[in-house]
Amino acid sequence: MTLTQANTTALTREALAAMDASDPLASFKEQFYIPQGVLYFDGNSLGAVPKTVEGRLQKAITEEWGNGLVRSWNTAGWYEMPRRLGNKIARLIGADDGEVVVADSTSVNLFKVLAAGVKLNPNRRVILSEPDNFPTDLYMAQGLIQLLGSDHELVLKPANEIMGAIDENTALVMLTHVNYRTGAMHDMNAITAQAHAKGALVIWDLAHSAGALPVDLTGANADFAIGCGYKYLNGGPGAPAFVYVAKRHQPNFSQPLAGWMGHNKPFAFDWKYEPAEGIGRYLAGTQAVLSMTALECGVDVMLEADMVQIREKSLTMADLFIQLVEQRCGSFGLELVTPTDGSIRGSQVSYSHPQGFPIMQALVTTGVIGDYREPNILRFGFTPLYVSFTDIWDTVAILADILQKRTWERPEFQRRGNVT
Amino acid sequence: MTLTQANTTALTREALAAMDASDPLASFKEQFYIPQGVLYFDGNSLGAVPKTVEGRLQKAITEEWGNGLVRSWNTAGWYEMPRRLGNKIARLIGADDGEVVVADSTSVNLFKVLAAGVKLNPNRRVILSEPDNFPTDLYMAQGLIQLLGSDHELVLKPANEIMGAIDENTALVMLTHVNYRTGAMHDMNAITAQAHAKGALVIWDLAHSAGALPVDLTGANADFAIGCGYKYLNGGPGAPAFVYVAKRHQPNFSQPLAGWMGHNKPFAFDWKYEPAEGIGRYLAGTQAVLSMTALECGVDVMLEADMVQIREKSLTMADLFIQLVEQRCGSFGLELVTPTDGSIRGSQVSYSHPQGFPIMQALVTTGVIGDYREPNILRFGFTPLYVSFTDIWDTVAILADILQKRTWERPEFQRRGNVT
Repeated sequence: MTLTQANTTALTREALAAMDASDPLASFKEQFYIPQGVLYFDGNSLGAVPKTVEGRLQKAITEEWGNGLVRSWNTAGWYEMPRRLGNKIARLIGADDGEVVVADSTSVNLFKVLAAGVKLNPNRRVILSEPDNFPTDLYMAQGLIQLLGSDHELVLKPANEIMGAIDENTALVMLTHVNYRTGAMHDMNAITAQAHAKGALVIWDLAHSAGALPVDLTGANADFAIGCGYKYLNGGPGAPAFVYVAKRHQPNFSQPLAGWMGHNKPFAFDWKYEPAEGIGRYLAGTQAVLSMTALECGVDVMLEADMVQIREKSLTMADLFIQLVEQRCGSFGLELVTPTDGSIRGSQVSYSHPQGFPIMQALVTTGVIGDYREPNILRFGFTPLYVSFTDIWDTVAILADILQKRTWERPEFQRRGNVT
Repeated sequence: MTLTQANTTALTREALAAMDASDPLASFKEQFYIPQGVLYFDGNSLGAVPKTVEGRLQKAITEEWGNGLVRSWNTAGWYEMPRRLGNKIARLIGADDGEVVVADSTSVNLFKVLAAGVKLNPNRRVILSEPDNFPTDLYMAQGLIQLLGSDHELVLKPANEIMGAIDENTALVMLTHVNYRTGAMHDMNAITAQAHAKGALVIWDLAHSAGALPVDLTGANADFAIGCGYKYLNGGPGAPAFVYVAKRHQPNFSQPLAGWMGHNKPFAFDWKYEPAEGIGRYLAGTQAVLSMTALECGVDVMLEADMVQIREKSLTMADLFIQLVEQRCGSFGLELVTPTDGSIRGSQVSYSHPQGFPIMQALVTTGVIGDYREPNILRFGFTPLYVSFTDIWDTVAILADILQKRTWERPEFQRRGNVT
């Protein structure tokens, strides 16, 4: 059954089970560990564990680190890993070999390309973004501007005003492709083209795109991108991030976090920095090999899947979720903040609700793990490799029950921890 | 038997075995995995595996990541880990709670404190270091200066001229406490005092000190320090690094890699950066939890040991090594480049030799793993927790054999890989 059929027939759990039965991605669920009793809709905060990770890390610890010791920098390929894994991720985001490297965190990688963008457009003073961009992106731009002590300015405009705000003073447009709160997706091609027409460069943050939907950086003629290893790429908590720099920009700038791993000849131990040819110059210090090894497991699973099928399933799941919530929870004050039009939506559905925090706490207690984001957002991420259509049915049923019985009113659901 | 006794009696394998038998640190060797047939003298490049790592990482993967999923940021203490582990490392380097945080790589942490030092001393233009400092330190300073586009200058003076070169234009002295090549150790107290007397600040790179010998940052009235997790702390390949900032400097500067984990309220998702109180502001993005978990295993073992005993054994081992090499390899052209005076030496012994590279290759083939450093240095690191006195005897015997038989002349030992 397709979604179109689902729209015209009664939505039942049986109908969704039939969709699972014919889902070409269904077998991928076997490749992940999902705890008993959990319905996981937070893979866009931390992806689930690929089952290969445990054995692979054991090998990395006992054979590579344990037996190989320092020799494993050569013999186990540790030294090449950031580039090798970068080339794998490149295939998920429409980039070429030699345009992506895995290193550091998303924030730190953003600093590198922010510096590149500002210095490659030296006569302009504005970094343009939106107030609803993921905060760390805005913070990193503020950190760079403060360090430079220059008259650069971070200008924030609402998403729908970005295109019109790009002008002859815009050095750099810095946007997250899919909004972390609403799930709304920017038109990467149109904004990049508009920026280029106005002489600006663009940084795309792919945190909620890479592994979630087809991205074509080459097709968009993108300049710079960064992204996260621990969301849709299932690389584990705090997994290393990646950075993309279009080949045409690589020779023209040497990024400021000029550590030895980005040197042209790191083991010559010269005193003078000479950046590596190509994307390698976006490396800084020695990379966290164990965390990167786990990330490779996640990326390898993702590369086995067809990204078009992932996207199709993701959109269908989100449409079904919206429909079911409307049918079953429509009278309880949830307001959809995600676009209903799939073509401008990432892989999540979010609702605002004045009691968003305790409702999510109540859900988590039942085993439905979504995410809460300030000020009042309930966020449900769809990861087609390990979430099924019946999971969606069951989740909406539980949500409806909580709303109907006002379970969220219990005092224990009102208390806040430091991380949500 | 002590070293003094060793000096006055014949050095025999039996005498060294007796030293092992009475070594108060001997039992620590059981806590590490050393492969059969390996004599490991490269723990200052990559420390050996603590035996706890495998089980601990398995738990982190299956229980914390697997079962806990995103909830483990709270329930498994991931969120607090950089500060908690920072406080543990503080005890190894004479710092207080709240002065050390674990994050990123050594290079990236250096960038943070370089920026702090330069900005906190705004009327001065010189970053003073030595040409033989570890290259990544020099590179990061070059990267910062180039980014600032200012008239700051990296001035390099030989180690013995540093004290005299600190003047009224010195913003910052940046030194590695123990030289990676020669093992020579700077006088931290004297240089810090001299810098302060001249109005300069100091960054100490503790890569070859933390976990190797007693460090007292508080006693030295230190300003900033950074250090490495994968050498003497045995944290695994590319383990996260640490950064120390004296409490008096913390409120006065907000470092430029202003990621959300360094924000005062990261989960308020405000658009404006507001640095955390205290050392937390030296965090940037989300940290690599799996790699950090392995590092904690290494630090925990180190905290069980008495640092005074570690230092005593390290010095004795190095003295013995020097003595034995002199006795058995004296005529083969090895030149000692490490101070014989233990009080100005770290935990390694290095020799130059025109055939340094193939000699080390030949050694590695026999299972003796030391390190080669350009241009001609054979480096032997001493890690008292898992290297024994008889290991030293056996290593020198093998070295003597290689030199005597000129095994290193074989063509296979002449070929160079990209990492050595």
